[in-house]
Amino acid sequence: MKMSRIYNIAKKIKFVVFDFDGVFTDNCVFIDENGQELVRCYRSDGIGLSRLKEIGVDLLILSSEPNDILKHRARKLKIKYINNCRDKFKKLSAEIRKRGILLNQVAFVGNDINDSECLKKVGFPIAVADSHRDIIKLARYRTKLKGGRGAVREICDFIYNLKTRGSA
Amino acid sequence: MKMSRIYNIAKKIKFVVFDFDGVFTDNCVFIDENGQELVRCYRSDGIGLSRLKEIGVDLLILSSEPNDILKHRARKLKIKYINNCRDKFKKLSAEIRKRGILLNQVAFVGNDINDSECLKKVGFPIAVADSHRDIIKLARYRTKLKGGRGAVREICDFIYNLKTRGSA
Amino acid sequence: MKMSRIYNIAKKIKFVVFDFDGVFTDNCVFIDENGQELVRCYRSDGIGLSRLKEIGVDLLILSSEPNDILKHRARKLKIKYINNCRDKFKKLSAEIRKRGILLNQVAFVGNDINDSECLKKVGFPIAVADSHRDIIKLARYRTKLKGGRGAVREICDFIYNLKTRGSA
Amino acid sequence: MKMSRIYNIAKKIKFVVFDFDGVFTDNCVFIDENGQELVRCYRSDGIGLSRLKEIGVDLLILSSEPNDILKHRARKLKIKYINNCRDKFKKLSAEIRKRGILLNQVAFVGNDINDSECLKKVGFPIAVADSHRDIIKLARYRTKLKGGRGAVREICDFIYNLKTRGSA
Repeated sequence: MKMSRIYNIAKKIKFVVFDFDGVFTDNCVFIDENGQELVRCYRSDGIGLSRLKEIGVDLLILSSEPNDILKHRARKLKIKYINNCRDKFKKLSAEIRKRGILLNQVAFVGNDINDSECLKKVGFPIAVADSHRDIIKLARYRTKLKGGRGAVREICDFIYNLKTRGSA
Repeated sequence: MKMSRIYNIAKKIKFVVFDFDGVFTDNCVFIDENGQELVRCYRSDGIGLSRLKEIGVDLLILSSEPNDILKHRARKLKIKYINNCRDKFKKLSAEIRKRGILLNQVAFVGNDINDSECLKKVGFPIAVADSHRDIIKLARYRTKLKGGRGAVREICDFIYNLKTRGSA
Repeated sequence: MKMSRIYNIAKKIKFVVFDFDGVFTDNCVFIDENGQELVRCYRSDGIGLSRLKEIGVDLLILSSEPNDILKHRARKLKIKYINNCRDKFKKLSAEIRKRGILLNQVAFVGNDINDSECLKKVGFPIAVADSHRDIIKLARYRTKLKGGRGAVREICDFIYNLKTRGSA
Repeated sequence: MKMSRIYNIAKKIKFVVFDFDGVFTDNCVFIDENGQELVRCYRSDGIGLSRLKEIGVDLLILSSEPNDILKHRARKLKIKYINNCRDKFKKLSAEIRKRGILLNQVAFVGNDINDSECLKKVGFPIAVADSHRDIIKLARYRTKLKGGRGAVREICDFIYNLKTRGSA
């Protein structure tokens, strides 16, 4: 697909939905002797997400992981989240209906096969650089940067620049 | 060895046994001031292991490390484990006998010289990309991805695809 | 700009001000299930900072992050710090006035767009290797090493060598 | 220097002394909100160190860091350690005298300028791959692998193979 077409799709985006593990993180989990988990996120995602919110783009993190770490990260970033989600596309559909927007106004950012259905359905499917190979095929945009190492910021900058400057 | 021969071996596998450190992890250990340890695992291993179990492949993690972290990881992944194992091949032999299967129906995934005997004996010996050089020589398959960075998922996808689609 | 001109600027530096996240760290944050944060710093920064102090260069870490981790790191390194800073250039100006020095005697080390104003104003603006692309344009010196992986030490050695040996 | 000469030096080594940070670790330190520190070590160092001990090579970790993490790591690896050391060469000399051996029977493994004196004096000075540039010049052997990512194991295997097989 031509880059100019992708620009036109990205400019219309009103709602960006992110998977968490592998997108906000490097897809790793640290585990201690008590079974407590840690993940690694990227500090500079914060500035990118803030700027998207300032221009009215709605944001959501949607994860199948039951773990509470996502809650803490989402609160610090001041964006909405849903964790422990069994059926991502069902949940995504409900969130879209609530907002009264269309699927082609939605971007979804994923990295693994449980993101497949969402990626197939939204107007702007995005895969992080180090996604599973079956996911990369489904994306209209593959980030240059890896999950947890700038991918979220790259997506935010891309959409922000298109919407404010008209170019990426 | 020809790839077609490896495909034939992999298709017959009924039991996959994994070392833990360096296979599920990046072979590092984080240590705090109280001597508490943490390791780093890969989130996407979970989907790969689930799919292998769904098609009836039996799974086990076999480690010489006494540490309890493995227990927590194995429980979250819902697969069996043995830690603090002095003699890996002896234990592996007992587990094979229990299942009434043959050595050529077993895959073993290792990364260091204490995995040598198991790798020499099983039908499908696998080394992760960043294994010790003496281990790489013993393997019929060397993963493209590193331990703790996709190696387990790559092995699961490889066997799953061969068994369900007939191709890798 | 010619390297000889950069050498002349660097020799005059009396005050080096560093951003924290992305400069002293790899710009990542580890988050546990209680929302507690960790960051990753570089051990060898300590020797570089000590040597700069020994020859009378003043040092400060200036961060917008509210988190207390910076406090602990700064105390161990025995250098001054300001965290939770809303307006970095305002604070920087006050610190410069206090010292009775000029902007062209100041180096500022940053990695993201909230460092832009400081970088535009000081005599020696420095960006770490893995800075945001809009920041790299503002720098007179871009480190070869990444933030949290030697960038601070590289800057210390660069200024120290110029001031003591006359060459980098 | 010719490799054959290095082999002759390595074969005579009776005592291997290691710096800790940057040699056993990747030279990073993780810091949490209470100022508690963690470091990252390499699991496979253990097998290499055990094999050297089995053939009678004496081992010591010598660090200037006051932190207790080294104590926990050294105990797990069952090797001696000295931390919080102000003058490394003085301490090294005392340890050599205690053992009744000569400087040319000693290997020292370092990564930064506080290791300089020890490296200049011992018979077999070794620098890890990612050492400070001033240290690399002092070494007769530079590891292929980085500190905390296999450097210690590489050194152990190198000396072990020379002493047991006569080749590296």
